[in-house]
Amino acid sequence: MSEAHGFSGVIAPVLTPFAEDGSPDADRFQAHAKWLLADGCTGLAPFGTTGEANSLGLDERMRLLDALVGGGVDAGLLMPGTGVCAMSDTVTLTRHAVKAGCGGVMMLPPFYYKAIGDDGLFAYYSEVIDRIGDDRLQIFLYHIPPVAQVGLSVELVGRLIDAFPETIVGLKDSSGDWDNTKALLEAFPGFTVFPGSEIFLLQGLRAGGAGCITATGNVNARMIRNVYDNWQGDQADTLQDEITAVRTTIQARAMIPMLKAIVAHFQNDPGWARMRPPFLALDAAEAQAGITELTEQFGFELKAA
Amino acid sequence: MSEAHGFSGVIAPVLTPFAEDGSPDADRFQAHAKWLLADGCTGLAPFGTTGEANSLGLDERMRLLDALVGGGVDAGLLMPGTGVCAMSDTVTLTRHAVKAGCGGVMMLPPFYYKAIGDDGLFAYYSEVIDRIGDDRLQIFLYHIPPVAQVGLSVELVGRLIDAFPETIVGLKDSSGDWDNTKALLEAFPGFTVFPGSEIFLLQGLRAGGAGCITATGNVNARMIRNVYDNWQGDQADTLQDEITAVRTTIQARAMIPMLKAIVAHFQNDPGWARMRPPFLALDAAEAQAGITELTEQFGFELKAA
Repeated sequence: MSEAHGFSGVIAPVLTPFAEDGSPDADRFQAHAKWLLADGCTGLAPFGTTGEANSLGLDERMRLLDALVGGGVDAGLLMPGTGVCAMSDTVTLTRHAVKAGCGGVMMLPPFYYKAIGDDGLFAYYSEVIDRIGDDRLQIFLYHIPPVAQVGLSVELVGRLIDAFPETIVGLKDSSGDWDNTKALLEAFPGFTVFPGSEIFLLQGLRAGGAGCITATGNVNARMIRNVYDNWQGDQADTLQDEITAVRTTIQARAMIPMLKAIVAHFQNDPGWARMRPPFLALDAAEAQAGITELTEQFGFELKAA
Repeated sequence: MSEAHGFSGVIAPVLTPFAEDGSPDADRFQAHAKWLLADGCTGLAPFGTTGEANSLGLDERMRLLDALVGGGVDAGLLMPGTGVCAMSDTVTLTRHAVKAGCGGVMMLPPFYYKAIGDDGLFAYYSEVIDRIGDDRLQIFLYHIPPVAQVGLSVELVGRLIDAFPETIVGLKDSSGDWDNTKALLEAFPGFTVFPGSEIFLLQGLRAGGAGCITATGNVNARMIRNVYDNWQGDQADTLQDEITAVRTTIQARAMIPMLKAIVAHFQNDPGWARMRPPFLALDAAEAQAGITELTEQFGFELKAA
């Protein structure tokens, strides 16, 4: 099994800001990515669920990635989401990411057609890998059944690792189901597994996990990183409890709009709160209530790096 | 409410054949489309669920549409599927279809993010229509909750018709729920509603429906058209029972692979049976069993037009 990639720690699925005309805002995006790396993120996963990736067009994704790398973000720290419904589009996005030098890609299964068996998903990933035909390709499978509705069974993951040991190197487990994360960690020692939430960070590290890829990394990387850095210390459980409490407060509201509202508030940049339909921004009162809770309960603020 | 479009009757969501190298086969596609129109289809909906559209890349869809129109298929009879997850890609595909002169488009809601409310979906369709900004645009909403998992409530459909009476002209109801089709027909007289299966054809016509858009139109258009043409005649119920029986036999197996196996068999062209992952072709024995049932029970065959 390959460990050529360098991903571990706290990875944020970067939020995607939009300009007033509704187009993705490459400048704000780049600035946010750099700030995240300075704030404690060890890597970035642009174009994840949190990044409204599935509301972005193919061209938009590629332009934003080019903006990050062109703007000086180390491509080796990037694990962009490249899995869409259509194999040919997945190949286009993935090939672009590999050529840009990205350290890895995060790949959803094709998620439109439901009740697809493991054989069909195995055939899909196999053909994608075959078409790309590039040894540099490092795939992190993206398991998020609550949203995609098409998941990756432990058995299928095993088949893929066996068939492509140098390419299928890790998995983001956003099932929210610790038993599934545990089963993966036990079944595939050395395989890189990231829980999709910091709620499972400490538990994951103790079981051999690699860290976490978490939406709230967009606003709370420093505290989450602190747990990662001190997971074997005496304070680990206390630190974990704190980040769990912050996460719980944030996700009590619609997660992605709330995260954007937090960035908008602390950066004093209201435009950051814009969402692309089908998502809508939180109304101002709702957003303010969430921010007040975070501030009063946790002294929460985004700090300049 | 606009009735500028000319869609009614039996519309087939055209199957997409693939060449040996896995690319969409424009020649077979064009030939099949022409054969369908000669066999009784009154219109065609390329790039629906049945056409494996969500396994096709943006470029592939546009090239295939160009092949149809360039090959002499009347664009006015075409209602291509153009709704994908990302608004910007939906706009690209829809604009291309309008420019090609298509009589309409069939538009899925954005289907990755779940638990999106009516307000978010309304904002999505509104912005798509606004960005396209073309009076020729005629949208048929595509309601298929069993697959997309994101549906269009009767209330939302009403809001969209009210806001865009010249553009939101119809709906394909693939809910499989007659009560929903009935509710739409009762709520919006003059709005064009197609049940997504011929099982509801006669029932739909009696309640003011426009016909049907049905997967099995790819292999059984002639019989289905016969029901449409004779729905007020004495034999209507008997004819309906026959097409329901054929449908039931076909869908007893995996629908899309079975349809392709039928075309492959009767056209003596095994390559037609190819599927793109995540779909897999039926195994030969399974396909043959389905074909034998159809032949023995219904004297079923595809007839040259």
